[in-house]
Amino acid sequence: MSTLEMIEAAAERLQGHVRETPLLTSPFLDELAGRRVLVKPECLQHTGSFKFRGAWSAISALSEVDRKRGVIAYSSGNHAQGVALAAALHGISSVIVMPSDAPQLKIDNTRALGGEVVLYDRANESREEIGEALASERGLTLIRPYDEPQVIAGQGTTGLEIARQASAMGIEKADVLVCCGGGGLTSGIALALEGHAPGLRARPCEPEGFDDVKRSLATGQIQNNNAAAGNICDAILTPQPGDITFPILKRLCGPGLSVTEEEAMQAMALAFLRLKIVLEPGGAVSLASALFRKDEIKGDAVIVVASGGNTDPEVFGKALEFLT
Amino acid sequence: MSTLEMIEAAAERLQGHVRETPLLTSPFLDELAGRRVLVKPECLQHTGSFKFRGAWSAISALSEVDRKRGVIAYSSGNHAQGVALAAALHGISSVIVMPSDAPQLKIDNTRALGGEVVLYDRANESREEIGEALASERGLTLIRPYDEPQVIAGQGTTGLEIARQASAMGIEKADVLVCCGGGGLTSGIALALEGHAPGLRARPCEPEGFDDVKRSLATGQIQNNNAAAGNICDAILTPQPGDITFPILKRLCGPGLSVTEEEAMQAMALAFLRLKIVLEPGGAVSLASALFRKDEIKGDAVIVVASGGNTDPEVFGKALEFLT
Repeated sequence: MSTLEMIEAAAERLQGHVRETPLLTSPFLDELAGRRVLVKPECLQHTGSFKFRGAWSAISALSEVDRKRGVIAYSSGNHAQGVALAAALHGISSVIVMPSDAPQLKIDNTRALGGEVVLYDRANESREEIGEALASERGLTLIRPYDEPQVIAGQGTTGLEIARQASAMGIEKADVLVCCGGGGLTSGIALALEGHAPGLRARPCEPEGFDDVKRSLATGQIQNNNAAAGNICDAILTPQPGDITFPILKRLCGPGLSVTEEEAMQAMALAFLRLKIVLEPGGAVSLASALFRKDEIKGDAVIVVASGGNTDPEVFGKALEFLT
Repeated sequence: MSTLEMIEAAAERLQGHVRETPLLTSPFLDELAGRRVLVKPECLQHTGSFKFRGAWSAISALSEVDRKRGVIAYSSGNHAQGVALAAALHGISSVIVMPSDAPQLKIDNTRALGGEVVLYDRANESREEIGEALASERGLTLIRPYDEPQVIAGQGTTGLEIARQASAMGIEKADVLVCCGGGGLTSGIALALEGHAPGLRARPCEPEGFDDVKRSLATGQIQNNNAAAGNICDAILTPQPGDITFPILKRLCGPGLSVTEEEAMQAMALAFLRLKIVLEPGGAVSLASALFRKDEIKGDAVIVVASGGNTDPEVFGKALEFLT
């Protein structure tokens, strides 16, 4: 179970280590969206995404004995970098199991942040087997990317900040659009808002064709995506909502929203032009939903959690073509 | 005269209207610079640059009678947008005199922010004559871009934030690198640091070949640039330091630093990759100085004021080529 109390406790442990991201605005985005748009740029978080929050929360919640043995994670993306840096800052070792065909930049970054990268052959090896062998051999604790109460609690600290910041700006009622993969960030935010800003409602945002959470919410049952890959929003492609996250999402969230790859890229371009921030495609689906699904949103203001900015220059260059 | 008291008074007037920008960090930049690098991203300020601070300060300092008559500014760039938005938010009119060959995007933006754009022919007309005629006809107050005490006071609020934020991070002694055109931002920050963080020292950063402030500081006399244009760092190309700003710079700043256009573009690319922020070339010379002039800097930490992010996609795309 993840609860508001766990989120508040995580916020105390994160104090002074996490970056409190601001709420950014632009009159140009307000105009496009037909309402006030407040963007929380988690791309400015350490390691370029919100994942650092959950990683810090989980590592700092371990017993001292367990923590000293080190942690392990499976990820080729944002979770890997978050765990590697959070572990290094705790002075402990981390093993990150990554596919050998992961982009060299991500492998290099994870190593540079202090992670011990163990590569596996996606076609012939099981990352779970490799990971379990290493974990039992060295006594490492597995940090799951979303279906992990202390990870959800860490991501939920984003929601505590939103509640405080929105209230300071006089916003008591609004939809909060959240980029959603396995649902760790969305469920954490939803719990935080339930406790501290009941007029704000979390809504998951996904790429079209990978809208498992939207369909799961609509049917009330966990639904799968047909494909595991094949969309530019790589950071948020997960097969289905988590067993821990889904009941929270179902209880607290408004309907899901989904956007095309092209709309995500356009949102990246507009974030560049109007907010001066760098978003990755999967971190821009929330802004794209605010701009291009405005009829599905209610109220005078909308809050957008832009969850990450770890994109390649090539992909970013393609997004900028929407401006020319 | 600009003084610490004026900056503190400006900070009170700006409270709740200006965005307090954070100090961003990346272990990758620390590694490159050979010391801790703390970046203050004023590109995230309203209108994409620090200029909004000075504009708000100057407009809010006017008497109610003068303010109601409106303001006027000459600028095709960041100052124009800052004045237009600050005026609109005060509910008053602004006239922005811009050359007719200014980029259409800048003209459109200034209009969209509420400015009345008056175009003039750079070859055959004098913007001063046009401006003075309009000002006397309508009773408008001219808001100068830097040689204006209340503008300097507004830019100086950046320095108050740096003093507070650096102290909270345990940094009492460091160089503060500031992108420098006419010297409004640099002199304001220098005054604020003198009062609130005497161990922090402002240092102006400029493009090579347009290093009038660096040479003026070195010789103790105001020096001119040979050319008025012809460098990608357009936002900070000014013929010479201001009459009001230079004595402040001379009294308080450390030696100037200068970087090549290529180094400014590389700094833009690294800010994209490591901080997820968008800088314009003129807003990146401070970061470039931290990364590529490290032998000219002392101490375990350096603070970098990244002053703006209003760049075209084409220029940004060129900067990203440094990563491939």
